[in-house]
Amino acid sequence: MKSRIISIGDELLRGDTVNTNASWLGEILIENGWPVTEVYTVGDSAGAIKEVIGQAMNASDLVITTGGLGPTQDDLTKNVVAEIFDARLVLHEPTLKFIKERFKERNIPFSESNYHQAEVPDNCQVLPNEYGTAPGLWIEENGGRLAVLPGIPHEMKALVQNEVLPRLKPVTEGKKRIFSRHIKVAGIGESTLSDNVLGPLDDFITEDISVAFLPSTQVNTIRINTQAISKRQADKKCDQLIRHIYKKAGKYIIGEGRDLTLSKAVGKVLRDYSLKIAVAESCTGGLLSNVLTDTPGSSDYMVGGLTAYANEVKMSQLDVPKEMLAEYGAVSRPVALQMAKAVARLMKADVGVSTTGIAGPGGGTDEKPVGTVWIGFWSSNRHFALRTHFTDDRLLNKERSVAVALETVRRTIIDVEPMPYGLNSYPA
Amino acid sequence: MKSRIISIGDELLRGDTVNTNASWLGEILIENGWPVTEVYTVGDSAGAIKEVIGQAMNASDLVITTGGLGPTQDDLTKNVVAEIFDARLVLHEPTLKFIKERFKERNIPFSESNYHQAEVPDNCQVLPNEYGTAPGLWIEENGGRLAVLPGIPHEMKALVQNEVLPRLKPVTEGKKRIFSRHIKVAGIGESTLSDNVLGPLDDFITEDISVAFLPSTQVNTIRINTQAISKRQADKKCDQLIRHIYKKAGKYIIGEGRDLTLSKAVGKVLRDYSLKIAVAESCTGGLLSNVLTDTPGSSDYMVGGLTAYANEVKMSQLDVPKEMLAEYGAVSRPVALQMAKAVARLMKADVGVSTTGIAGPGGGTDEKPVGTVWIGFWSSNRHFALRTHFTDDRLLNKERSVAVALETVRRTIIDVEPMPYGLNSYPA
Repeated sequence: MKSRIISIGDELLRGDTVNTNASWLGEILIENGWPVTEVYTVGDSAGAIKEVIGQAMNASDLVITTGGLGPTQDDLTKNVVAEIFDARLVLHEPTLKFIKERFKERNIPFSESNYHQAEVPDNCQVLPNEYGTAPGLWIEENGGRLAVLPGIPHEMKALVQNEVLPRLKPVTEGKKRIFSRHIKVAGIGESTLSDNVLGPLDDFITEDISVAFLPSTQVNTIRINTQAISKRQADKKCDQLIRHIYKKAGKYIIGEGRDLTLSKAVGKVLRDYSLKIAVAESCTGGLLSNVLTDTPGSSDYMVGGLTAYANEVKMSQLDVPKEMLAEYGAVSRPVALQMAKAVARLMKADVGVSTTGIAGPGGGTDEKPVGTVWIGFWSSNRHFALRTHFTDDRLLNKERSVAVALETVRRTIIDVEPMPYGLNSYPA
Repeated sequence: MKSRIISIGDELLRGDTVNTNASWLGEILIENGWPVTEVYTVGDSAGAIKEVIGQAMNASDLVITTGGLGPTQDDLTKNVVAEIFDARLVLHEPTLKFIKERFKERNIPFSESNYHQAEVPDNCQVLPNEYGTAPGLWIEENGGRLAVLPGIPHEMKALVQNEVLPRLKPVTEGKKRIFSRHIKVAGIGESTLSDNVLGPLDDFITEDISVAFLPSTQVNTIRINTQAISKRQADKKCDQLIRHIYKKAGKYIIGEGRDLTLSKAVGKVLRDYSLKIAVAESCTGGLLSNVLTDTPGSSDYMVGGLTAYANEVKMSQLDVPKEMLAEYGAVSRPVALQMAKAVARLMKADVGVSTTGIAGPGGGTDEKPVGTVWIGFWSSNRHFALRTHFTDDRLLNKERSVAVALETVRRTIIDVEPMPYGLNSYPA
């Protein structure tokens, strides 16, 4: 079963929006047995939309369009779809009711253009959109399948999970498809991992098994794709490879699963060891606290955090002595250590972790260039700091600092050496 | 002049890689008078590549392909291009020399497959790639233009800047092209903005002027595209429309520019009024502090923040009385107000802003369902709280809470009513 994605919107062609919808769909569709063979992106032009949907319906078993379902004049997808199938747009009462309730709840006046949001072609099944005012559409004709979805990512994703995949499942059930396993690895670079730790994997690769390294700022993913008719069969097929990876890279592996993040892995370790954490941030400005609280239930282990951006706040809230700032500067080992210790004590946490550095683009010196960051760790029986050096890019520096801080916490609690990226730890 | 992009590679279809090349190209091409009308993404399949290049050469003035130029077996673009033009692959000596030097420099053995990198179709101009081993190709035939570029972003970008744009410039010089203006609007929904505030814009739309609404979680963008031969002429042409938009929607407009964010706009207002801000966060968990510090130079107005995730931290750090928590609960007006006031006093800031809510997915009650959020504002002469209600989605609730908090700060400081999304403000 093959599928084609049609992404609609001038904003995609002009580079205002990066097409992340297509990559999300590509990944989820291949895993469900509907690999994407083409992604066609067109603008808000009725002619172009009509042409590519028509072509796609002929060439593919499944066509998914995203975008062009909003209430404004440049949103044309629904009208074009009605035209293609010679259907009439009719008012869908449940959608109208839903939209009206939604507007009322939020105290937004209901306007004319919102009626159009509740109109659908009379040959379609309506896919209710719980997060927005544009419902999805599902049309099956002559063996072809067309899903018409909104372009707003969270609305589109919910519709795929709740409405589209259940309609696809019966078609591919029992057939060979690709099962993926995502092994997540932190605190080690991609090439060190593949060349020095894992070594060649050729002996494990068969016609049915492939391996890819997918790098990202926080964690690297080793993705194993196995063709099989069931998850059980797939797991059995790639068992030798998985064992090899765990044997060689075990201490860098934070867990498995596409959606596993470093902050979730740290949360699990904190929960397993019944530890509470508090964070004190300077250069990361709240990002560390933010990613820790992205996980549902994080209040079980995350007590709180303090962003001490101004030196006055470091002094008044975290008891960093004025003399220490004068002698060593805010970006220094003693300040990182003091911040970690103070926040843990202040918030009655078992573990305190801190960041202080020069995120950039300004503020660097010869001795402490932009990208210099100290990470501090404090618990009742261990305290140390790490010095790292990143890039000139402010946001990347924030993200990487957070990654090192989180992985430092994880490794220290479960007592795994070395420190992330082989960094030296400087004891207090 | 119209262009079409062809992105080549299985990794794009499987979702391993997001197609950022296409959006980068879309932006630079429209600005240079070669708007992209389609982006077609295909896999590493000779048949598919041949078909879309053939179609594109017939339909567009310029075709740019990216990807499929590497040394491995799944890199097919060059062979397919030679086939399409009935050309022969010949060894390009300067490229071979460059590659050999590069390998020597890096101490990498030169292997057979690298000879193939130096082969090019005999009908092309070679575009030297200073950052990699695959040169770009330029072919002009029958009025069509084809640029064949590598998929690695920094290699592709350098080739576009140094080789492709100089070849395009003489064609479009002095001709009409599109100039964009991005007007950013916050705290108002897309449909309310277009229907109730702006009204129909048909009177301002000409053949040369178009308007699009681009929604996102934090801000909506009104994008005006004007065809003209210079920026000055473009600004003049759309002057009436711009005036209308500012007249009708002025109080919702946070500024102009493709890259303007809400936190940058708030930062500007704080700087203009010489005010310092501190934030106290519960449900947003550090995100508010984080986005405020994403802007370079934010230390001029952002003093710090406190994530008071546990109630104990709300009591010990923000002086929220135990009795208040017992009587009203943590998600309440008095607690939001106390948090905002306490953090401002603690950190000696002029403005304190707070968030307390139920981010979800758990923790909701009938009275306070998931998505209920209180935003508190405190300054020496104004203090109030807003109650809002969002969705079931935890991360979205965090983002929307931050958007409302930031826009509340902006409007209150510059004294613009109403509150974001028409929310009621409850004074202390």
